[in-house]
Amino acid sequence: MKLASLRSDSKHGQLVVVSKDNKSAVKAQGPTSLLEALENWSEVVPTLEQAYRSLNSGSAADAFALRLEDCLAPLPYAPGFYDGSAFLSHVVRARRSRGDEMPESARVTPLMYQGVSDCLLPFNAPIELMDPNFGGDFEGEFAAITDFVPRGTPAEKMDPHLVLFTLFNDITYREIVKTEIQTKFGFLQSKPNSSFAPFVVTRDELGDAWKDGRIELEMEVRLNGELFGNPSGREMNFSFQQLVAHACRTRPLSPGNIVGTGTVSNEDKNRGFACLTEARYQEIMDTGNPVTPWLKVGDNLRIDVRLAGTSLFGCIDEKVIV
Amino acid sequence: MKLASLRSDSKHGQLVVVSKDNKSAVKAQGPTSLLEALENWSEVVPTLEQAYRSLNSGSAADAFALRLEDCLAPLPYAPGFYDGSAFLSHVVRARRSRGDEMPESARVTPLMYQGVSDCLLPFNAPIELMDPNFGGDFEGEFAAITDFVPRGTPAEKMDPHLVLFTLFNDITYREIVKTEIQTKFGFLQSKPNSSFAPFVVTRDELGDAWKDGRIELEMEVRLNGELFGNPSGREMNFSFQQLVAHACRTRPLSPGNIVGTGTVSNEDKNRGFACLTEARYQEIMDTGNPVTPWLKVGDNLRIDVRLAGTSLFGCIDEKVIV
Repeated sequence: MKLASLRSDSKHGQLVVVSKDNKSAVKAQGPTSLLEALENWSEVVPTLEQAYRSLNSGSAADAFALRLEDCLAPLPYAPGFYDGSAFLSHVVRARRSRGDEMPESARVTPLMYQGVSDCLLPFNAPIELMDPNFGGDFEGEFAAITDFVPRGTPAEKMDPHLVLFTLFNDITYREIVKTEIQTKFGFLQSKPNSSFAPFVVTRDELGDAWKDGRIELEMEVRLNGELFGNPSGREMNFSFQQLVAHACRTRPLSPGNIVGTGTVSNEDKNRGFACLTEARYQEIMDTGNPVTPWLKVGDNLRIDVRLAGTSLFGCIDEKVIV
Repeated sequence: MKLASLRSDSKHGQLVVVSKDNKSAVKAQGPTSLLEALENWSEVVPTLEQAYRSLNSGSAADAFALRLEDCLAPLPYAPGFYDGSAFLSHVVRARRSRGDEMPESARVTPLMYQGVSDCLLPFNAPIELMDPNFGGDFEGEFAAITDFVPRGTPAEKMDPHLVLFTLFNDITYREIVKTEIQTKFGFLQSKPNSSFAPFVVTRDELGDAWKDGRIELEMEVRLNGELFGNPSGREMNFSFQQLVAHACRTRPLSPGNIVGTGTVSNEDKNRGFACLTEARYQEIMDTGNPVTPWLKVGDNLRIDVRLAGTSLFGCIDEKVIV
């Protein structure tokens, strides 16, 4: 099942069920927002699934053509957002690029910070550089969205709580990261609001690509039309179950919490990258100097994940502005 | 004006106006929750203020006796929570207690992390130690609650956005802090959900105690009935305006964001402390060994701020359990 939130009078948007081919939609019966649906997930799923089947078979009476530009972030006001760094090849490259080492503990305990969860941006929001000296960068990531997760739920009991999945761009100001990392208080000004692909999907939509708690699909990143990277989700060092277990160890997660994987990254540099900073680090390794610039005004960024020829979450498609 | 959120069918609770003497209340007309009120603040304030005047003069027809035990956290599901470390005497003592130094940048840029903002606890929630080896501690802090703050709002334009103030206990697992600080990703498992005093107040309630963007009142901390500390809010190194300006530099804050001051702390050790870790550090300085234990099962913690003989925010009053 695919869901989206359309612009409406509510800050949460109007929940709609989206067809498998991303072309049509129907208003959800019952819950008006995705947040409300997640708060009553087991009760509302049967009705939503029924609407999804009707939509895909062409028999949904109230179906309408989906206009992508009406899509908000699926959860524009989430109750919480946790971002891990589950792809260690990213952590190693990113830390080295700022003259730092990956802590050894990162191999056994996920690195994770709490990020901003309100005012989350739609898939087509312009990326605002604010100040070119901030070093604007993107990070292509997968995310899981939870229902209520009791405090201390272990990874092996997490499956029922991973109810939705999506794709997002964790916009990052790399030059501010350099100063914030020194405070040891985590990332704040270096991480403005992230932008989210238009659709969230249930696990069954992932089919065989859901394996060992990973989304084993390629993330295709295009910068100004050129392929910048197509790393696979396969090399995630921690599973989604482990990431959410880390987040909920000493607190419950209320329905609608988002847990991100960190930038998708592979050891093989030939896969390219899902953020600029890794490309720059690789250049330092290869030539001594980073040549890939940070995002520039006018750049176009596209991040997409395709399954069976169709965009699974809808494509993130953003212009860079000042 | 004083406001509180009473237990109701909604996770946000029912917004009530509370009398100046904390004894009676009346349901808010219009907005049902504090979050909803903050989303329409300038529109709803006149009606709420009118109710407050009626309540204080004894002429509110629908007034009822306030039962403290019905109070939730004023904003149990806030859209965001930022916690600063604005009292540098706390930062110096806390960092030294874990063999670390306060970064020099902390004198010019507030230390601040993003914390958990859902499932916030009421004033009388038991403090759960979970595992005694976690090193359970409390932190008495002031907080401001904002309306919508546009991205990049500077400190000198922040006054209209600081609409409510309160008091909270930032519960902390000190032994987990020691490992999380090494990751440089900030605090997550070391900071379970904070508990909040029952009332939020508008700035005019602070009277002359509101000075230079600080709350110049003593925070009285009692552990098992004994005075543990009564530090004043006067020595805050950054004003509330500066703290919120730090939080919103690269992102807007939606209505209902909470910005905390960090543990209230004074240079004079004779004021005592608003957390255990500072007492322990002081003991290391004075005798070579920390003797104050972390929180123990059965401990009672009370944190209160009084103005003109009345508890301003209501008293945090918690039992420690395992």
